[in-house]
Amino acid sequence: MSENVKQSKMVGKQSILFQNPPCIISAASIAGKKEGEGPLGSLFDVVCEDPLVGKNSWEEAESELMKQAAGKVLEKAGLKNTDIRYLVGGDLLGQLIATSFGIAELEIPLIGIYGACSTMGEAMSIGAMLVDGGYADKVLAITSSHFAGAEKQFRFPLDYGNQRPYSASWTVTGSGAVILADRNSNKKNSSEPNIVIKGITPGKIVDYGLKDSMNMGAAMAPAAFETIKQNFEDFGVQPSYYDKIITGDLGYVGKNILIDLLKEKNYDISSNHMDCGIEIFDKDSQDTHAGGSGCGCSAVTFTSYILKQLKERSWKRVLFIPTGALLSQVSFNEGKSVPGIAHAVIVEAE
Amino acid sequence: MSENVKQSKMVGKQSILFQNPPCIISAASIAGKKEGEGPLGSLFDVVCEDPLVGKNSWEEAESELMKQAAGKVLEKAGLKNTDIRYLVGGDLLGQLIATSFGIAELEIPLIGIYGACSTMGEAMSIGAMLVDGGYADKVLAITSSHFAGAEKQFRFPLDYGNQRPYSASWTVTGSGAVILADRNSNKKNSSEPNIVIKGITPGKIVDYGLKDSMNMGAAMAPAAFETIKQNFEDFGVQPSYYDKIITGDLGYVGKNILIDLLKEKNYDISSNHMDCGIEIFDKDSQDTHAGGSGCGCSAVTFTSYILKQLKERSWKRVLFIPTGALLSQVSFNEGKSVPGIAHAVIVEAE
Repeated sequence: MSENVKQSKMVGKQSILFQNPPCIISAASIAGKKEGEGPLGSLFDVVCEDPLVGKNSWEEAESELMKQAAGKVLEKAGLKNTDIRYLVGGDLLGQLIATSFGIAELEIPLIGIYGACSTMGEAMSIGAMLVDGGYADKVLAITSSHFAGAEKQFRFPLDYGNQRPYSASWTVTGSGAVILADRNSNKKNSSEPNIVIKGITPGKIVDYGLKDSMNMGAAMAPAAFETIKQNFEDFGVQPSYYDKIITGDLGYVGKNILIDLLKEKNYDISSNHMDCGIEIFDKDSQDTHAGGSGCGCSAVTFTSYILKQLKERSWKRVLFIPTGALLSQVSFNEGKSVPGIAHAVIVEAE
Repeated sequence: MSENVKQSKMVGKQSILFQNPPCIISAASIAGKKEGEGPLGSLFDVVCEDPLVGKNSWEEAESELMKQAAGKVLEKAGLKNTDIRYLVGGDLLGQLIATSFGIAELEIPLIGIYGACSTMGEAMSIGAMLVDGGYADKVLAITSSHFAGAEKQFRFPLDYGNQRPYSASWTVTGSGAVILADRNSNKKNSSEPNIVIKGITPGKIVDYGLKDSMNMGAAMAPAAFETIKQNFEDFGVQPSYYDKIITGDLGYVGKNILIDLLKEKNYDISSNHMDCGIEIFDKDSQDTHAGGSGCGCSAVTFTSYILKQLKERSWKRVLFIPTGALLSQVSFNEGKSVPGIAHAVIVEAE
């Protein structure tokens, strides 16, 4: 019996179905000025007008965004830091310094993760396993990114005035956080559905050999393709099973590649696909080229727009697939390719 | 009932006790030349004489160490890559490039983690939860570090010829890997005990404000102290409960600080404490100053010497606490402190 119970959580080759789907009991989004001026601007909990968020460096600014997101998600849940058993989080900076300096004061045991821009998917996946598995009553999953810090880390400092090709994306300045808890412990607002994480499909590294750090959408699209295809196969479903299939930050270039790759396998997601990187900025007026990117892109879009649609029952079931490009300044300078990874999370309004 | 079962896994404030303690069914250690010449040299599966491991850069060399460790741990278990459901791993390099390029070819879904030199503790902890929770039948936990890559990443390139103070540690060149599986699935060698992960205590970030990247033992000791103290309190045990209490890479400086901090709380671990960073190099002949460090330090010591003692029943129960210093080149250059983190894993021969 115990053996049967355990087996049933593993679905297909690489997916997991939760027996006690954890509930997202709180969510918070802190965004930068440019993000605040975009189409989702009115939905963010806080928009920081100051790009340095009152700090002295881009790295400290990003830590502050994360600190504010953690504070806000606790406040909205009516919880204290001591109510959270584990924090799962990470960011884009080398050695996760935005996270380390952003959440240290909370004194919550930390599971530090790195999945590039797929980090929110990885954080929610691990957090969901911790809650469903009975290892934690409440888990905080969080990530962040900052435009200026990411440019400095991966490409050129802003002062250099480098030109951006049209395939380049714009790293979102922002931090998104959710608190996951046992479904039964949620004192839900009676008018709203419970928002639960029903299952996950952790992704593999996929490397088609692209070497252009200014075209990350193309580098990540094959990883998104593999994870989404595997999700369909593992659960035996078609694209229409989901009201929306939402990638993290493929942007305009990557979106088309993803749709084409899936079409070759007879999966047509063209009518229900959405990309956070495309939604977060206005293509015509905001000059962000291929769209938004960064850990913060999918995180703040999820914790604002996507959750709103689920809470309003406009969507009942979404497949949320944050996508990451596993490059570093060093690997890029040494002429290595840009491998991609994508972690899928099934989120339902019930 | 289901509620009771779930509650019982959470122990005290931040520990977990596994109901079906996962078994370490295979382990592998790949070490560099200097490590091979040290006291544990004869216990490593492979010693690489070439510091570049046949590659063109330190980063590629580290990826190759990890690739070899993954290959060896699979080979020793008689398993293929497709037998492993998830891989949990990370390294010290920014954006985990040693891991990304080291394990991509295995095509195993990746949970990328960063815990600085505590990474092996974090990987084994997450791996154990995946197996105990029924989310995976077999998980590969892996980490690596490389002396030259770490010096380049965190301090100065070797060519610069920087002098090393006596408080500095020597980053271990090596990679260690274990495969975790359900205890019942283990076809154990009848003469050897099962080696199981009985419980874990994930650690918090602890920052006493030290800013010296050449004295990481002192920066990490407070984190080890907090995690070990919490482990004692959560499980209601005294230091003698463990045959050995084994920190990752505190070295000579950090070891004394840890023992003193615990003594102030009336815990005396002086007789059963051991530090991987002290064991791996010979103090008199190898000129490594404070001792060994790096993700690879605790990983190769665990997968060689520590597991051997457990398999021979010289020790029956150890508390393994890899310790990490959460600095980056950027945070150090910006004058930030070096926060520490430590994740404890209870390993038993049964």
